[in-house]
Amino acid sequence: MIESDSEDFVRRMGTYTDRTERCLDRVLRPADKVPARLHEAMRYAVLNGGKRIRPLLVYAAGACLGVAPEKLDVPATAIELLHAFSLVHDDLPAMDDDDLRRGQPTVHRKFDEATAILAADALQPLAFHTIAAAVALDDTESRQLTKLIADACGSRGMTGGQAIDLASEGKNLSIDELTEMHGLKTGALIRAAAMSPCYLAGDLCESYWTAMDGFSRDIGLAFQIRDDILDVTGQTDVIGKPAGSDQSMNKATWPAIFGMDESVRRCDELLAASMQHLDTFGLQAEPLRLLAHFIVSRRR
Amino acid sequence: MIESDSEDFVRRMGTYTDRTERCLDRVLRPADKVPARLHEAMRYAVLNGGKRIRPLLVYAAGACLGVAPEKLDVPATAIELLHAFSLVHDDLPAMDDDDLRRGQPTVHRKFDEATAILAADALQPLAFHTIAAAVALDDTESRQLTKLIADACGSRGMTGGQAIDLASEGKNLSIDELTEMHGLKTGALIRAAAMSPCYLAGDLCESYWTAMDGFSRDIGLAFQIRDDILDVTGQTDVIGKPAGSDQSMNKATWPAIFGMDESVRRCDELLAASMQHLDTFGLQAEPLRLLAHFIVSRRR
Repeated sequence: MIESDSEDFVRRMGTYTDRTERCLDRVLRPADKVPARLHEAMRYAVLNGGKRIRPLLVYAAGACLGVAPEKLDVPATAIELLHAFSLVHDDLPAMDDDDLRRGQPTVHRKFDEATAILAADALQPLAFHTIAAAVALDDTESRQLTKLIADACGSRGMTGGQAIDLASEGKNLSIDELTEMHGLKTGALIRAAAMSPCYLAGDLCESYWTAMDGFSRDIGLAFQIRDDILDVTGQTDVIGKPAGSDQSMNKATWPAIFGMDESVRRCDELLAASMQHLDTFGLQAEPLRLLAHFIVSRRR
Repeated sequence: MIESDSEDFVRRMGTYTDRTERCLDRVLRPADKVPARLHEAMRYAVLNGGKRIRPLLVYAAGACLGVAPEKLDVPATAIELLHAFSLVHDDLPAMDDDDLRRGQPTVHRKFDEATAILAADALQPLAFHTIAAAVALDDTESRQLTKLIADACGSRGMTGGQAIDLASEGKNLSIDELTEMHGLKTGALIRAAAMSPCYLAGDLCESYWTAMDGFSRDIGLAFQIRDDILDVTGQTDVIGKPAGSDQSMNKATWPAIFGMDESVRRCDELLAASMQHLDTFGLQAEPLRLLAHFIVSRRR
């Protein structure tokens, strides 16, 4: 990575995260609208300084395929709302029982449990409404995105992965089981983020679909392994949640099962594999390459 | 209502609820598919002998507008999945803390709290996926239904109403506040059920939209007042949940605030108003008329 590329990438990342913040702020109802406490909690859950990795993936993959940013705003916003929804429920006492998220009290700690349940519940339909109501999309694009993203959130995607994660506490999973669980819990929504621009790019050749699918699966798993590594090596004030919380809950994680060296090695291997998929797109994939490197080297 | 009409209606209701059960069974993943416990809980939450009032409204309104049952299956299924989702979260310890639903242990009682949270979470995207994937709908119909139904579920609809309901415990609401709360909590999804066939009926004249909208709002409120009345007068073994639970939680209900006589009177008044809206459709609205009468006279 040469210096100027890297600087340009950081600048573009900033532009895209700003864009995401504005879109999220626009679709969320103002905190003074009835029911005010619910709307306040929804805004708190979403507008909390998140890294916006999934929106960045949408914009970077969209740039790779030449899709207009106005169209990309739609899946970027919807997917980030759904990600925020899943975090709020993940943190609940009956689930991971976390007090901190990104260095701030979790939603049920800041408000109360019922409000946290309902605020997240209301983020889901807001995401699907955003896709259905978007003027930038035609009917076919809107419908294809709904299908892709709804599938990625359900029992065959993110929520299914959360269920397997909970059931796996204290168990030794095989490499295949762990890969499947991660593929659902984190991978499905990350895949939806990278794949969504494919539905907005007009007629795309088969090899592009295949390459983006392969890239999204590799980088999705690398993202989760990096998350697990950070949970062990990171500091609470940097990662924004209590370090070592996976371990204390006996969670099935990559470092816990295969050790730290193997986890780092696997992460590097997945990054290399993801780069190979991007060869298909040539120079156009540069933002995706830089984002992938950022994902596996991030400190939080 | 003459005898033969009534018999015919009961027969048709049976046909439509059977149809709903088959559709729900088809879209829910088999209970032996991984994650099995989650899929089992999702099926338990949905296939539990519910009255299927919302699907019946879809089919009756659709019959009124001449929409093919294959198209009506889609909103009927999606709306019932969303209704089931809301009940599971409503019953959670942090919300109404109910042990019984339709005479059976609630989902968190039968399984556990985390599974109940996740099972309901997965019913939402399943509903939207069902609308997006339906072969019976064209892209525009699919998108319009997603927009209508997502809006009815969010903070401006059902979930917003649940938040106001929780916040109103122990408070005396005005008639306007109570009407607004009911309009969101129960009314929004009932309205979506009656309105969804309007989006599937081709070009519909303005007066039909207005009449169906008016009907759906009146019958939605009548439905909720009847629910509140049954909570006071019903028997646990008939209504399937502990009688008097609203009162014991100091819920803002119609009988609690305005008394039983006024509640019954208001319910009859709303029924009469809903009938006036149906005049617009003439004889075609007969199934809707019978269903409306059933809604305000039901025993559970």
